[in-house]
Formats: sequence, structure tokens, C-alpha cells
Amino acid sequence: MPDVTRADCVARDAADPLASFREEFVLPEGVIYLDGNSLGALPARTAAHLQHVVTQEWGQGLIRSWNDAGWFDKPRTLGDRVGALIGAGPGQVVVCDSTSINIYKALVAALGLRPGRDVMIGDRDTFPTDLYMMQGATGALGGYEQRLISADGPELADVLDERVAAVLLTQVDYRTGRMYDMAAVTAQVHAAGALMIWDLAHSAGAVPVDLDGCGADLAVGCSYKYLNGGPGAPAFVYVAHRHQEAASQPLTGWHGHAAPFAFTPDYEPAAGITRFLVGTPPLLSYAGLEASLEIWDRVDLAQLRTKSLALTDLFIELVEARVGEHVQVVTPRDHAVRGSQVSLRHEDSYAPMQALIERGVIGDFRAPDLMRFGFTPLYTGYADVWDAVDVLTEVLTSEVWREPRYATRLAVT
Amino acid sequence: MPDVTRADCVARDAADPLASFREEFVLPEGVIYLDGNSLGALPARTAAHLQHVVTQEWGQGLIRSWNDAGWFDKPRTLGDRVGALIGAGPGQVVVCDSTSINIYKALVAALGLRPGRDVMIGDRDTFPTDLYMMQGATGALGGYEQRLISADGPELADVLDERVAAVLLTQVDYRTGRMYDMAAVTAQVHAAGALMIWDLAHSAGAVPVDLDGCGADLAVGCSYKYLNGGPGAPAFVYVAHRHQEAASQPLTGWHGHAAPFAFTPDYEPAAGITRFLVGTPPLLSYAGLEASLEIWDRVDLAQLRTKSLALTDLFIELVEARVGEHVQVVTPRDHAVRGSQVSLRHEDSYAPMQALIERGVIGDFRAPDLMRFGFTPLYTGYADVWDAVDVLTEVLTSEVWREPRYATRLAVT
Repeated sequence: MPDVTRADCVARDAADPLASFREEFVLPEGVIYLDGNSLGALPARTAAHLQHVVTQEWGQGLIRSWNDAGWFDKPRTLGDRVGALIGAGPGQVVVCDSTSINIYKALVAALGLRPGRDVMIGDRDTFPTDLYMMQGATGALGGYEQRLISADGPELADVLDERVAAVLLTQVDYRTGRMYDMAAVTAQVHAAGALMIWDLAHSAGAVPVDLDGCGADLAVGCSYKYLNGGPGAPAFVYVAHRHQEAASQPLTGWHGHAAPFAFTPDYEPAAGITRFLVGTPPLLSYAGLEASLEIWDRVDLAQLRTKSLALTDLFIELVEARVGEHVQVVTPRDHAVRGSQVSLRHEDSYAPMQALIERGVIGDFRAPDLMRFGFTPLYTGYADVWDAVDVLTEVLTSEVWREPRYATRLAVT
Repeated sequence: MPDVTRADCVARDAADPLASFREEFVLPEGVIYLDGNSLGALPARTAAHLQHVVTQEWGQGLIRSWNDAGWFDKPRTLGDRVGALIGAGPGQVVVCDSTSINIYKALVAALGLRPGRDVMIGDRDTFPTDLYMMQGATGALGGYEQRLISADGPELADVLDERVAAVLLTQVDYRTGRMYDMAAVTAQVHAAGALMIWDLAHSAGAVPVDLDGCGADLAVGCSYKYLNGGPGAPAFVYVAHRHQEAASQPLTGWHGHAAPFAFTPDYEPAAGITRFLVGTPPLLSYAGLEASLEIWDRVDLAQLRTKSLALTDLFIELVEARVGEHVQVVTPRDHAVRGSQVSLRHEDSYAPMQALIERGVIGDFRAPDLMRFGFTPLYTGYADVWDAVDVLTEVLTSEVWREPRYATRLAVT
């Protein structure tokens, strides 16, 4: 048994400066939710805010709410608030569309900003929609080559040369939780004359991000994971001020037009980040994000990171002490390269995760062989970690997961 | 004064077979809402359904709702229900993204289905995001020519030849309410060997549409207008069964993958219409559409069309009788080519519309010189039409609209 006790965990919760945020989220009775890196938990304020938007803004305001309720500006106003969480000054982030679609825009924009270069670099290990969108863009545009790096090689330095227009990497790997040094990688890419696009799907609301500070060129991310915007909540895209005037993207819809209500037949891009908008925004989903940002506006991000590392440290320590012979911790121990999740490799992983979920400990399975646990400091405490490892220990040591009924289900990012 | 009286209108409302639907919508006190062609009114059931999705499916079900609440299949299940309203058999429609983005997918897919042809035809008079997306696609792909038809010429026959790959037209014109004969135009386009893409933004829930029956190839549309899905509710895209296996679109996100949870690095399109999906769907906005479809599933579309034409006939008759010297009716009198709106040309139009809105009659202004009134048979009655014309008559004959305060606002489609 480890040196740390459950009583120690309860004491740490009592002393936690972020503890009061737990009351701002609704979680089911009897559930320890370690999947907020897939779908963030429901903020307590969201239901009432949605009701307001539906019954008042839509029902009573009707079409007038495009002006009176600020609907038209939501992509920008919410974008600036998301920007504050990822080190982006105002006017560089819009909330819109899905992460996949924003990747497409960012890739094509980056290629346009580096004429004469014909290579895109991606990461073979990343969440594959990034690769799929790169393949779609390559196929549509023609004449571009993709190069993929991987944990097994090649490394970035092996494939980065004067032909490379853009590099697209996910800061925190969705499987392993390994985190890139954004400043160092961005500098390395810039040294080759290429542009850096960061995918922040597992970063926003999870780890420190300083887009402006590290000189990133473009970035994308989602708001339904750590940011608690709701299922399928709108994504975001960042374009550094210095690139905005020259940047163009091919999804040239009317919300990105310089004068959307002039209804002129020729597209003319709006000034600034607005040109990355496309069609009419799904405002009920925006309302979900707006409600959660009321919480996120008040979070001390340094405290968040401190607690995130403490939670993942504790989880790793307890797992190794209690079920170390059953699983391998694949997430880095080094704080500098660890996101806000811990992934465990097990001979099966799929069935044990289903057995955990049945017992109220919700993480997820990631093919081919990982159990993944996300740690969200605003609504997860130290005693939760203790209790989760307790259930994991029971599932793995009893081998209950070998029962056939645990072999059939589906998990989603 | 016209022959028809307000009492006649009240009597027609009492005899209306669709009258009971009025109770299924919430409208503000004192408002006659003639802008449901821009943002549909709120169904009474929507607020409770949203609460259920937020508190139960998200809050309690959390990540499990991707399976247990059918989230993963919503683009297809809601797509089939929208399909039933536009003459599309199951498996040909998905609800996803925005109309603009779906236009991009449809255009690129159509070009891919007609290799060797290098011309796209659009309509200069249409809602311009269709043109903007065509320009974006042309710019991104390179090597394609656009030709635009217009009410002032050229006509479709003038520009349709063996170089044309695809024709994109909006069935009901957003300004004038003029409606194309879908079957005739589709046949004309097919005779030239090209593919027909219909934009149904002002058709779905408004006029009869028979995509399968007229042999349409692809179609797009939105659900926030006549279908009452909520502000920015998700759009849809239709691809006829016969094209699905060969159709590809460039926004190749993971929700369109053949095996989205295998997380393989190479994109492989899903079978059927699913390949037109991209990223994670904004499910709170889907919930808005799901609630309104509970109403639309029960609507007799022939009754809807009959009442739509009766309402627009009545409006035109009253307008011409009472303010015929102030405005010109630009919407066709011929039922065969009239959508579910009436547009009036006036020397100003902008200020009179603001004066109408202030008096509780909500229509909208469309540049450069139109007042536009949408007629939604489920929640608009004959007495509403009478009362709206009464207010219009007061605004125009008193010339109150000349007061400077009516010169400043913004309207949105």
C-alpha cells in the first residue's frame, strides 16, 4: 500500500484553493468523472442560461436578438474570452464551426501565407481528424506533400526543411498525455521558415498556453472538453494579428464578409479575424459555452496547473503502488511534458474500462490498448482520485473485467 | 377598401385545419411575426426538451449519452426526418454544419462527379453566401470558371453547355419570393449532362419539395427559418443515393470516416451520406431542431401549402387595396412560382420596416429596397394578416417612417 491515505486526500481537498468551484458543477450521484477531457461536466449555471436564451432571447426577442442580445458578435466576444485562457490578446480568436473545419481553414490559410512551399507536416500519433483534414486539403488543392512525424520517428528535425509551409501539431497528445514545449517547437519551425499551427483540443482549460508569447501563427481547439461548453460546443480558431491581413481561407461564407448585410455578389473578406467565420453560428450551442465561460473567467490558471499536476501525480503514485503489476503508466512523469490526463496500458483496457464505468468511475478507452483518465481540477478532488484507484484496483485484481458483457460498447472523444 | 373584412379573416381562422398548431408556438404579446423566413418562432416544447438534454443527457448521462441518448446518430436520424419534409427517402440527408459549409461540400462533390467539366453556374440574385462559397471553392481548387445567371439575364439556357459540371440555384429567391420549377430546371440541367444542386433555405417547411421525384443530385438547406430549429440551428445536405458511392467532399473529418473509433491515420470515407459529416455536432443546437421536428412530423404538407398561398394571396390583395399607391408587390401572383413570402418595393423600405417593427409587426428589410414578409402557416392566421396590413397602412399613409430615428438598425437573414 502507498504511504498516502484517504484521510490525507480528504485533508488536501479541504485545503484546496479551487475547492469552491466543485459546487459550480453538476455531477451524477455516485460517479467519479475522469472523462472531462472528452466531454466536460455540466456547469450548474448552464441550464438557467439556456432557458434564458431560448425563452427570452429567441422566444421573445426573435429576430431582434441578432442585435439586442449580441448574437451577431458572439463569435468574437466569446472568442476573446477563450483567448484569455490560451494567451491570445483580443481580436485574434473567433469561436466557430468544429475543430476539424477550423483545421482546414488554418491549413489552407497557412499554405497561402507561404507561397512556393509545398509540404505540410503532421503527427501520425495525433487525434486522426487532424490528419484526415490535412488529407482532404491536400487532395482538394493538389500539389502538396504530407510528411508525418511519430513517437517512433521520424522526428520534426528530420523532416523540417525549406519546402515546409506549415506544421500542425497537437500540444497534448490525446492518447498518452505527452505535451510539447510550444515555445521551443514554434521557434524550431520558424527557424525553418515555416508556420506553426497548434491544435489545443487537450490544452484549453487544461494546461498553460501562451500563444502570443510563443509566437504561434495559427491555432485551433474545442470547447466541449476541459472548457465545459457542452456536447459538440463550438470550436475556435486563432490567427496572430501579424498574419490576419494576408490570411485567406476557402470557406468564404457571408459571416466572414466585410459587409455581410450589403448582400453584394462578390466576396470581400472582413478585416481581422472575422474573415475566419463562415455561416450562421449555432447559437444555442454558443449559449452553453457562454455559461461555462462565466466560471472560466474567474479561474486562476496557475492554481489550475498546480492542482492538475498534483492530481495526476497522486493518481500515478496510487496506481503504481496498488496495481503496478497490471498496468503500465504511459503518461510522462516529467511535469514539463505532461498534460492533464493519465493513460494506462493494460493487456485489454477496453473491458476493464467498461467495468469501471459500470462502477461509476468514468474514463475512456483509446484504441488500441489504453485506459485514459482526464483530471479536471475544477470538479475533481484528491479523495476522488483515491476512490477511483480503489475501484480500479478491485476491477483489475478481481479480474471481473473478463466477464463477456464488458466486451461491447463504444466510446467517443 | 377591399371586399374582405376582418370578420371574414376571423372566420377563416376558425375554419383553418392547421389552427391548432398555433398553440404549439410561443410568440410575444402584441407581436405579429412575419419574419419566420429569417428566424422561425419558438416551439412551446423546445424549452423543456433543451432542459432535458442539458440536465439529463449531458449532466447525468455525460459521455455515455453519445450512445445512450443517440447523440452519435443525430445527424442521420434528424436528417431522415428533415428528408421526409423535402421529398428525400431515408439515408440521403444529414443534418450538419452551416448551409454555407454544406454548399462548399456539395459544390466540390459535384465537380468531382463530373470530371473534365470546368464550369459552375450560380445565380447572381441569390442570397450571396452561395456565390461566396462558389468563389471560395473556385479559388481553392483553381481552374474552374463561374457563370452567373440573373433575372436581368443571362438565362440558364444561355450559359448551359457541355463544359458545365454543376448548377447551384436557390429554389425560392430570398428577395422576391420567386420560386423555380424544380423538376423542369433539374431536367434542363441533366439534359446538358450537368448536376443540379438545390439550395432549399427558403423551401424546407415552406413549399412542396420533391427531391427524389425531380431527380435532384444534391441539395442543402437550413433549419432555423421555416423549420423552427432555433437561431443558427444546424443545416442539412442531401446527396441522392445514386451518387453517394462516388461522391467525395474535401472536409474529411472523423465523423465522416468509415471507422471513426478505430483512430487510424488514413481517411476512408464512410458508406452513404455519412461521408458528408465532418466534426463533432453541436448537440444543444441539434436539440432545438429535434424539438421542432416533433411538430413538423405531424404537419400535412398539402394543407400547409394551401394555407401559405391563401395567406400570401390575402396579404397581396389587402396591400394593393389599401397601400397600392405606396408600394409595388414584387412577389409573383402566379401560385406556381410563389414561395411563402411577399416582398414589397418602396422608395425607402428600410425606415418603414423599422417603424413596423416598433409597432409589433416584424418583417425585415432586404437591400437595396425591399420590405419582406414571411408567412408561416403553423403560427400565422388570416386575422394576423389583416392586422399587419392595418399597421402597414398607418405607417405608410401617415409617413411616420420619415422620422430620423427609423434610419438606424440592422437586420439579419
